[in-house]
Amino acid sequence: MEKLSRNNRVVAITKILMENPNKIVGLNKFSELLNAAKSTLSEDIVIVREVLEKLNMGKIETISGVAGGIKYIPKIGEDKAREFALELCNLLKDDGRVIPGNIIYMTDLMYNPEIISTAGVMLSSCFQEANVDYVITVETKGIPLAYEVARNLGVQLVIARRDSQVTEGTTVSINYVSGSSGRLQQMSLSKKSMKAKSRCIFIDDFMKAGGTALGIKELLREFESELVGIGVLVDNTEFNKKLVDEYVSIVELKVVDKGSIMEVCPSKTFA
Amino acid sequence: MEKLSRNNRVVAITKILMENPNKIVGLNKFSELLNAAKSTLSEDIVIVREVLEKLNMGKIETISGVAGGIKYIPKIGEDKAREFALELCNLLKDDGRVIPGNIIYMTDLMYNPEIISTAGVMLSSCFQEANVDYVITVETKGIPLAYEVARNLGVQLVIARRDSQVTEGTTVSINYVSGSSGRLQQMSLSKKSMKAKSRCIFIDDFMKAGGTALGIKELLREFESELVGIGVLVDNTEFNKKLVDEYVSIVELKVVDKGSIMEVCPSKTFA
Repeated sequence: MEKLSRNNRVVAITKILMENPNKIVGLNKFSELLNAAKSTLSEDIVIVREVLEKLNMGKIETISGVAGGIKYIPKIGEDKAREFALELCNLLKDDGRVIPGNIIYMTDLMYNPEIISTAGVMLSSCFQEANVDYVITVETKGIPLAYEVARNLGVQLVIARRDSQVTEGTTVSINYVSGSSGRLQQMSLSKKSMKAKSRCIFIDDFMKAGGTALGIKELLREFESELVGIGVLVDNTEFNKKLVDEYVSIVELKVVDKGSIMEVCPSKTFA
Repeated sequence: MEKLSRNNRVVAITKILMENPNKIVGLNKFSELLNAAKSTLSEDIVIVREVLEKLNMGKIETISGVAGGIKYIPKIGEDKAREFALELCNLLKDDGRVIPGNIIYMTDLMYNPEIISTAGVMLSSCFQEANVDYVITVETKGIPLAYEVARNLGVQLVIARRDSQVTEGTTVSINYVSGSSGRLQQMSLSKKSMKAKSRCIFIDDFMKAGGTALGIKELLREFESELVGIGVLVDNTEFNKKLVDEYVSIVELKVVDKGSIMEVCPSKTFA
């Protein structure tokens, strides 16, 4: 292939890194694709790194050694994160979201790629240092968000099912008590879905009392694995006695009146 | 903000475009963020466009007019697509994938962001010209793939549930017959989930006889909407009388022996 100019190479490098968040990309890959010497590419990478950092668009880490290369870590600036959290608050305040059962209709937000991709970057950056092996969620509404977090962290997604499915092979099922309704619920996970001794984070759409998170913790114990973090889009702070200690949310919400008036604000993490 | 050099600006432009696939980004946005004149930015964009096209990494379209700007269209080259399809075949040939019930265990692939993000680009590029309003799937295994296709096409994801949920508000439920097992099944969708007169594509993990796709078609009719395309990761060609005419798959599969030997190859679209 013909030689590319620096302007051209930095575009390609940016694109490849963005497609492989938290994965080590060896200089060889760039070298083959862009027909450039490693020393030249190293200079290109410095440019990409500097501009991403300057514009709060993520980090590039260098990993040395035989299996070395560079790694793109998705991140958004504090200002942009706050702005997004406020925007989410406005969307949630919208009349007509409270549906029978005093439930907040959020499906449209959870399935909106524009919202979920930004929320995914915000939550994944909270767990960047947690050495995560898997992102786990329970079907269904949290799946796109959990998927984005898994993609950003460069790890596999795991989805616990409400009932065991023939397509999952041998499964482990547990019963747990919903912290808000007190009802007994079930979730199950394929034996094939994770290696023992794994570190997992649980991602979901909504946190009430935290019963589901506690259930996940117990389910992971059956896989000799550990829950090392919890992240949700919305935290319902009316349930102020949570069953889990530490978790991250993007916004906090309170249904003030059993109808439509709601108090909603960015969480402490993103305020 | 200080002025950035051209090689800095092209990095930022690439990043912003990639984060907003199939969304029109106005030049104003770049102009504010990068503190550069529109004429300068236009030259930058030419560079980004040319290198992406040269490396088969996607297209940039210019939309003129008041609401104009540029739009990034994800795409991968034919060679890379074929290579990916072949790799997927190898993964599927792996012994131990056939589990009781003559079912292919594919959960690990469907929840692997590296695989799903590439498959998402391949399928979305098949529907780029279809004027899609929504991507629809049925829970659960196809959700990450459907989400990727929706994100790439810049549209909302819609997920039909197996049973109606209180969190979904008023729902419409239909019964349909599974084309492979002949059993009656149900799916339901929130009334709030889509506007009437919409054009939808259905994305799923696996196609057997196409009963689910037919069910989706009927469900969409209840929403006065239309199914304009179908895309799946794996097509089981043992079921050679499909209930739907047109669909796209990435690989084709045949369980030759009721055990482990499988015939699997890239689909015609990606061979």
